Amino acid sequence: MSALRRGQTGGEAGVEDVTIRTLKLTLAYDGTRFVGWQRQADGESIQSLLEDALAKFEGMPVTVHGAGRTDAGVHALGQVASALVSFTHDPVTLHRALNARLPDDIRVVGVADAPEGFHARFGARSKTYRYQLRAGEVGDPFTRAFVWQLPETLDVDAMRAAAATLVGTHDFAAFQSTGTEVSSTVRTIFRSEFREPEKLSGADPLGPRRVIAYEITGDGFLRHMVRAIVGTLVDIGRGRRPADSMAQLLDGGTRAEAGATAPPHGLFLVRVDYD
Amino acid sequence: MSALRRGQTGGEAGVEDVTIRTLKLTLAYDGTRFVGWQRQADGESIQSLLEDALAKFEGMPVTVHGAGRTDAGVHALGQVASALVSFTHDPVTLHRALNARLPDDIRVVGVADAPEGFHARFGARSKTYRYQLRAGEVGDPFTRAFVWQLPETLDVDAMRAAAATLVGTHDFAAFQSTGTEVSSTVRTIFRSEFREPEKLSGADPLGPRRVIAYEITGDGFLRHMVRAIVGTLVDIGRGRRPADSMAQLLDGGTRAEAGATAPPHGLFLVRVDYD
Repeated sequence: MSALRRGQTGGEAGVEDVTIRTLKLTLAYDGTRFVGWQRQADGESIQSLLEDALAKFEGMPVTVHGAGRTDAGVHALGQVASALVSFTHDPVTLHRALNARLPDDIRVVGVADAPEGFHARFGARSKTYRYQLRAGEVGDPFTRAFVWQLPETLDVDAMRAAAATLVGTHDFAAFQSTGTEVSSTVRTIFRSEFREPEKLSGADPLGPRRVIAYEITGDGFLRHMVRAIVGTLVDIGRGRRPADSMAQLLDGGTRAEAGATAPPHGLFLVRVDYD
Repeated sequence: MSALRRGQTGGEAGVEDVTIRTLKLTLAYDGTRFVGWQRQADGESIQSLLEDALAKFEGMPVTVHGAGRTDAGVHALGQVASALVSFTHDPVTLHRALNARLPDDIRVVGVADAPEGFHARFGARSKTYRYQLRAGEVGDPFTRAFVWQLPETLDVDAMRAAAATLVGTHDFAAFQSTGTEVSSTVRTIFRSEFREPEKLSGADPLGPRRVIAYEITGDGFLRHMVRAIVGTLVDIGRGRRPADSMAQLLDGGTRAEAGATAPPHGLFLVRVDYD
């Protein structure tokens, strides 16, 4: 907001004339060691590190707004953040300089000047999340920070059928963390599907060997909603609840009736789309 | 050796009759936080954790021999270790129990009873290592622990040509860490090549996005030899030395004339083959 104030005073006697610009930053991060996107009293957050890096250019505090406030341990491939700034570095220089200042578990993958009024959170038309599972007794040391490893065999066909029932506009109250307050728990899901289990050549240490990837795109998500959906889908995959129970949960189900919240480390904010 | 002693005394009055078996263990590990394969006075090693886990079954210390003594920070997809033990757990039970005892950055991927006399190190016919590079200004937060990220463009064709000259029997003195003493620096390389740069679908956070993978198979390797070869190949890829300089290094070159030792975190022991 300091930037806006300075912009509004531009031209007045004794005050430097500055032009306010809106930055759109796209970020990838390994969320393992962070308290989450949002700045907290204790611990490092992605927001705080990004704000601190931008403040070095601005010469005063900068506020950034993230499209999705990812929780502790949740990762991002394409988080989007916006900020109002007055410094004049071109996007290419800024991109390089920000990555030089940030730790290597956070990478700026894109910097652009956005139209006036762009806001990463309020302007988002849809968000896509991905959740990665692996079924099998022996875990993979190389991807363990990014996959929920489950020892039992999963019925992926049943999970796929249940996932498909989420598409459309529904009340997701059963998939919202208890204790949260929002004006409406109705959201529209555009896509909810499992990608085919991927298998790379055996020698590849980094390949998603038999990773089961679930992806969901919607106009918005309640707190812990994707992880509660995944916890319910895994119950279905384990045979602990029928595939059609997902539809029942959308029809007046309560949080207690849905599955447990899946662990954060399998979740990625993949992309955010704007008009 | 304690197991051997007990075996030799089998049948004597007052001494329990035990049968000695030779175990062959195959291991994958993320070497990031370890002091290396080999037990050290300080810090955790893969060998010490594995020996400690086996000692719980044996009821006394167990010595394991690894095929390749990977350095601190070096990973393995298929390290092989052998041990003489007398406990009678079947391989399936032992496999599960060892993984339950070991931390999740070390996974036992195979347990088998080996023929008497099998020794993981002395019996190895060949070993295959893999080194992962990525060229590009922006690193990848998800694979940074397993890839050497280089900001400049690499001439992979020149690197491929230089790599091919290593195949055959050569004196690798130029690629050996200074200060090491071995009876011979001659080794035979069966394969030395770059795999095609791999590219997965853009949405995949764990894929080896444009990873440049070098693989080398030989009958043995000197200390730091693969990393010194990779350092030299990268010099060639950067245009700092000609591709044919590799052949010159094999013909009486010294360590100072070859490239720097590449960092450990891009290196994997992929597999060990036996007759």
